[in-house]
Amino acid sequence: MPPHPNPLVDALPATIPFVAPERTERETGTAFEARLGANEGNFGAAPAATAAMARAAREAVRNYPDPESWALREALATRLGVALEEIVVGPGIDGLLGLIVRIFAREGDKIVTSLGAYPTFNYHVAGYGRRLATVPYRDDREDLDALAATARAENAAIVYVSNPDNPMGTWWDAAAIDAFCDAVPERTLIVLDEAYGETAPAGTLPPINTARPNLIRLRTFSKAYGLAGLRCGYAFGTKALIAPFDKVRDHFGVNVMAQAAALASLGDRDWLAGTLGKIAAARDEIARIGGDNGLTALPSATNFVTLDCGRDGDHAMAVLKGLMAGGVFVRKPMAPVLDRCIRVSVGRPEELAHFATTLPIALAQARGDA
Amino acid sequence: MPPHPNPLVDALPATIPFVAPERTERETGTAFEARLGANEGNFGAAPAATAAMARAAREAVRNYPDPESWALREALATRLGVALEEIVVGPGIDGLLGLIVRIFAREGDKIVTSLGAYPTFNYHVAGYGRRLATVPYRDDREDLDALAATARAENAAIVYVSNPDNPMGTWWDAAAIDAFCDAVPERTLIVLDEAYGETAPAGTLPPINTARPNLIRLRTFSKAYGLAGLRCGYAFGTKALIAPFDKVRDHFGVNVMAQAAALASLGDRDWLAGTLGKIAAARDEIARIGGDNGLTALPSATNFVTLDCGRDGDHAMAVLKGLMAGGVFVRKPMAPVLDRCIRVSVGRPEELAHFATTLPIALAQARGDA
Repeated sequence: MPPHPNPLVDALPATIPFVAPERTERETGTAFEARLGANEGNFGAAPAATAAMARAAREAVRNYPDPESWALREALATRLGVALEEIVVGPGIDGLLGLIVRIFAREGDKIVTSLGAYPTFNYHVAGYGRRLATVPYRDDREDLDALAATARAENAAIVYVSNPDNPMGTWWDAAAIDAFCDAVPERTLIVLDEAYGETAPAGTLPPINTARPNLIRLRTFSKAYGLAGLRCGYAFGTKALIAPFDKVRDHFGVNVMAQAAALASLGDRDWLAGTLGKIAAARDEIARIGGDNGLTALPSATNFVTLDCGRDGDHAMAVLKGLMAGGVFVRKPMAPVLDRCIRVSVGRPEELAHFATTLPIALAQARGDA
Repeated sequence: MPPHPNPLVDALPATIPFVAPERTERETGTAFEARLGANEGNFGAAPAATAAMARAAREAVRNYPDPESWALREALATRLGVALEEIVVGPGIDGLLGLIVRIFAREGDKIVTSLGAYPTFNYHVAGYGRRLATVPYRDDREDLDALAATARAENAAIVYVSNPDNPMGTWWDAAAIDAFCDAVPERTLIVLDEAYGETAPAGTLPPINTARPNLIRLRTFSKAYGLAGLRCGYAFGTKALIAPFDKVRDHFGVNVMAQAAALASLGDRDWLAGTLGKIAAARDEIARIGGDNGLTALPSATNFVTLDCGRDGDHAMAVLKGLMAGGVFVRKPMAPVLDRCIRVSVGRPEELAHFATTLPIALAQARGDA
């Protein structure tokens, strides 16, 4: 008998968290004209990051990366006002989520998340043989009270919350998040995914306080900073929670381009402020386009806008397919109730113009008017 | 009680596979003048790779990488003469080794390797709660007969062999590797690490044959191709062995720079031939410098030369410390018998000149002549 995956891996489905737009492009033979589906940094990277990448391409790619991401962690520690030992850098939040599930739960442990929240987190939970307990959204927001109650009832090892939320774009203010953290049992690790933290209104992110013994917060350079392709995210929390990552992580896994570009980006606050302005304007424009076509835009604290298509999931799926066929890459929530919506990432003006042209056609087709 | 790592992670040591030269530089406050310790691509990357990185910096970093590494896998499949489904790309061989241990063994399973072979493999074995069985080197080469016999005796899930070998630089020819594969029980997965395959003499690498049901071969762009900083490696084998990676890997973990630069590098065969010539010349020069100082160079099929310091491990460690103090970053084997040696990576002429100047001083200090 040849080697075979162990029973845990063998039993996993062959599905992956996301089908990439590149696959659709290969299958259709057509490139998307507007890439508005993955909440990327369509306004590009900071000029300082581009310069840092050019330097790294000349001088650093031949060498292994610094396995401690020292310079980047130092800059992050200063910015956040925490100790170096309270931060770990990883190859994107995705990689860090996998490590968290691997480190802080045992096989069979219960892990709580919202039904319809980030699928890559669920992928890691299943991949390590942990068990999910899900809580429905309430009024298109993660239901903090129910999440805390379920964490308690299930004696959960981990509870996952994203704030601002993906895929709905909604958010809670810092006081609500703090109250939620207080309500979660101390033995349950709270994973607070703040991938969209930079684009949220003031008062959304709780003050940095690494004294809470059961909280890890996650941030990324993939969204506002426009560096999704380089894979760079970080986690921070107490030293006791951060130290174990070093026992199992792929130490040389954060590449030199990611470390260099992320560090340079941090230094360019004016560029970030300008980009946040563009993101806010694009959100307004997506909401306006939706409104012109009879769709309700959910309030958003992220770099995307979730549009309520006003009917059921099948209808929204038909709208999504029409948009894709018209050269607009978008995605949509899949869980019941949420699935009435499509999710449109902020894009450059020409991309949103293409969206504006394609949406009425897709809607007419989906409604059967065409 | 706050959250705590699970018992498996909790019991792991806090050590990491390698201390980085960046840490030594931070601690001493002095930059190394010659970086000859990590078997990197000191002759740089292909010009085509540099151009591809510049393009990617402008156009691609804002977007998530293609999670299927389609273009790169297509080029590799053509080059190797295998199917696309027989290749998986990962963030360096390190990341792939972790996945192999995770997929193809259960907790408590025995995994066989040579005593003193690649520590990162052992790190993953421990990290996933698998158990190591080690086989001593024989005459400074991995002992293929003993590895196969141990795999059989231990009913091992996996046996790991690197050819050419790290840290000794020695190698077996293709016929010996094929005979070894025949001798390993079919139920044991053979992991053949060919990180140094490009620098080996003709006849070292077995012909590509993905029919063998228990063989995964690993290659990298970190060595001959000079792209260690980008993290790009790949594995190939039967479809049955490659398919399970998609169930657990971090799909978006191979960054856009790695995919673009690796693909471009593959296309520049003249550059590779030139670089291999420089590597061979630098090996000769390291052997000459060693010989001039009374040290025996082991034959090498890699981008480093292992020098026998002629006494015990303590002496070789003293030589290494003298070199490090003199601005030469080198590493050394640590297992008994092998530990009489230091390992010197190929470098640019000015780096080897600095090594030539520093070595006699380090040797005199180690011998107590100074």
